[in-house]
Amino acid sequence: MAEPLPQGGVIGILGGGQLGRMLSVAASRLGLRCHIFEPGAHPPAGHVADGVTTAPYEDAEALRAFGEAVDVITYEFENVPTSALDLLESLAPIRPGREALRISQDRITEKDFLSGLGLAVAPYAQVDDLSSLHAALDQIGTPSILKTRRFGYDGKGQSRLAGTEDASSAIEAIAGAPAVLEGFVAFEREISVIAARSVDGSTACFTPGENVHAEGILRTTTVPASIDDGTQAAAVDIATTILEALDYVGVLGVELFVTSEGLLVNEIAPRVHNSGHWTQDGCAIDQFEQHIRAVAGWPLGDPARHSDVMMQNLIGDDMDSVPALAADGRAALHLYGKAETKPGRKMGHVNHVAGT
Amino acid sequence: MAEPLPQGGVIGILGGGQLGRMLSVAASRLGLRCHIFEPGAHPPAGHVADGVTTAPYEDAEALRAFGEAVDVITYEFENVPTSALDLLESLAPIRPGREALRISQDRITEKDFLSGLGLAVAPYAQVDDLSSLHAALDQIGTPSILKTRRFGYDGKGQSRLAGTEDASSAIEAIAGAPAVLEGFVAFEREISVIAARSVDGSTACFTPGENVHAEGILRTTTVPASIDDGTQAAAVDIATTILEALDYVGVLGVELFVTSEGLLVNEIAPRVHNSGHWTQDGCAIDQFEQHIRAVAGWPLGDPARHSDVMMQNLIGDDMDSVPALAADGRAALHLYGKAETKPGRKMGHVNHVAGT
Repeated sequence: MAEPLPQGGVIGILGGGQLGRMLSVAASRLGLRCHIFEPGAHPPAGHVADGVTTAPYEDAEALRAFGEAVDVITYEFENVPTSALDLLESLAPIRPGREALRISQDRITEKDFLSGLGLAVAPYAQVDDLSSLHAALDQIGTPSILKTRRFGYDGKGQSRLAGTEDASSAIEAIAGAPAVLEGFVAFEREISVIAARSVDGSTACFTPGENVHAEGILRTTTVPASIDDGTQAAAVDIATTILEALDYVGVLGVELFVTSEGLLVNEIAPRVHNSGHWTQDGCAIDQFEQHIRAVAGWPLGDPARHSDVMMQNLIGDDMDSVPALAADGRAALHLYGKAETKPGRKMGHVNHVAGT
Repeated sequence: MAEPLPQGGVIGILGGGQLGRMLSVAASRLGLRCHIFEPGAHPPAGHVADGVTTAPYEDAEALRAFGEAVDVITYEFENVPTSALDLLESLAPIRPGREALRISQDRITEKDFLSGLGLAVAPYAQVDDLSSLHAALDQIGTPSILKTRRFGYDGKGQSRLAGTEDASSAIEAIAGAPAVLEGFVAFEREISVIAARSVDGSTACFTPGENVHAEGILRTTTVPASIDDGTQAAAVDIATTILEALDYVGVLGVELFVTSEGLLVNEIAPRVHNSGHWTQDGCAIDQFEQHIRAVAGWPLGDPARHSDVMMQNLIGDDMDSVPALAADGRAALHLYGKAETKPGRKMGHVNHVAGT
């Protein structure tokens, strides 16, 4: 697919959650259609998609029909099974490419990759069992965090260690899965860069946002972040370095720690990212459209910010505040249409737009 | 339906064109779903809707199933057949209400209504045949415009008269349909107000935009309009007067002529309006979400403008400029996904956002 995807072209999206939902809406603005592949019934993205396939990632026949029905394939989460990608890659281009997925699916591979680019990361060591955890603790010390190498999100698959006496319970908490021990970073703040790269290699980064997490889940992103111009430029440089090293196509989320000694890369996500939701109400072209433009072979949009924004996630019972938020005529709501509210579940977000 | 429509609620939309498409996207932001009723196959709105019924407005069974599947009904065009509304109104609330439809479906009824509110309109007279056209010409003179009373849009069903000698050809041009002769207004500019009223009677108007038409079709809307504060306030007053007289719920488009003697109402449209498309990139809450909020019984959004915008329609071959517009990273594209480009057909629009 060397030419830009024409009007009526179909983008296949693996995953039907809120990110797929907002990608599908963005695609519609460009006259493109989306087809969702999602194992779960009634996916939020299905409410605004042209087509939905409900099937497990192990269903080769469903995958093949999906791959043949679309012009290009993207995804809303990085843990797409390798076997599904093996089957799909002969049917349509997969963007971002498989190297970005391979790296971001495994925390050790990711940290090795980032270190190899000369980028600073937290101290880390591989942990496969209790004895290698003790060895890792000797090297890294405490406080530290044990994280599963794969399938972690929103603070799941993580256990904090205050001292070596927590070793056994930490291994238990992650069910003995292959893991990485990360040294705790005394950061001043966490920021993220939502970066994009097009098929022709041009790049564009939105203004870095400042993130606040609680219980491992993003709560707010405030843009601009409280950082000086030099830090902002350094953050953009890091994101651009990663994009180019991966020959990346699409939007990439890069989480960074701001420390007294400079920036550390926390993690990368090869997709649109929760900390980029502010762009929906802060920029003429948001991260979702930026991603669609990139994977469809279109030119990137200008990431200039027209408004400052504070994005607040609506998690679980936060949905009780929707009537009050709806009555605040300046709060831009983005609700995901999920059938059931659960504790810790992302149900929506709200962008508080300043300066109007 | 006294309570606001809850998460997962379904809005039925009569008509599946670009307005229905953008309404459906806006509804998704509020966690609501849309079901489209449209006689034509492959409607643009269907790409981003939760449900689509393809059936003629005469299909009582399809209408009934549609009415039973939705919580509230709205529409994207004012020429919905009365028989369909008769059937639907017992199944779900229709918003905006039928009085607004009745008035806006007929140019004479509309002008009588507006005049009755004390609002200025162009001189007009009813025309049923050649002899009543001659009587109307005696009263109104030329230049003037003969317009069909019903079913006109985008300059269709209209004929201009430079002198009385054009009478016969004008009657022929509109195929002898019931009509109105309107005196030509020497206006300085045309503006429009996109006004909204909620179930609880509160109102909100977006900044008036300035419209340029060619061949009866809107080409551009520029916001803000080049008018003084007094004219802007008068325009908003007129729109609010109309909203209240109709006990209106939803978004109403009001087209006005600015003349040396003040404002004249050109026409009203009981729906989201092409001249309000700029709000998608100029306001935190756009006209589509404003309409959905109103018909769903939610509070209205703040119509404050964060950016100045020039909206340009992409009509027919204007689509040839899409690659150049896509390469202009500051141009916010909104394409309708229509399968076929035809002369005079609205294929999309672009918002040029200033001040970023």
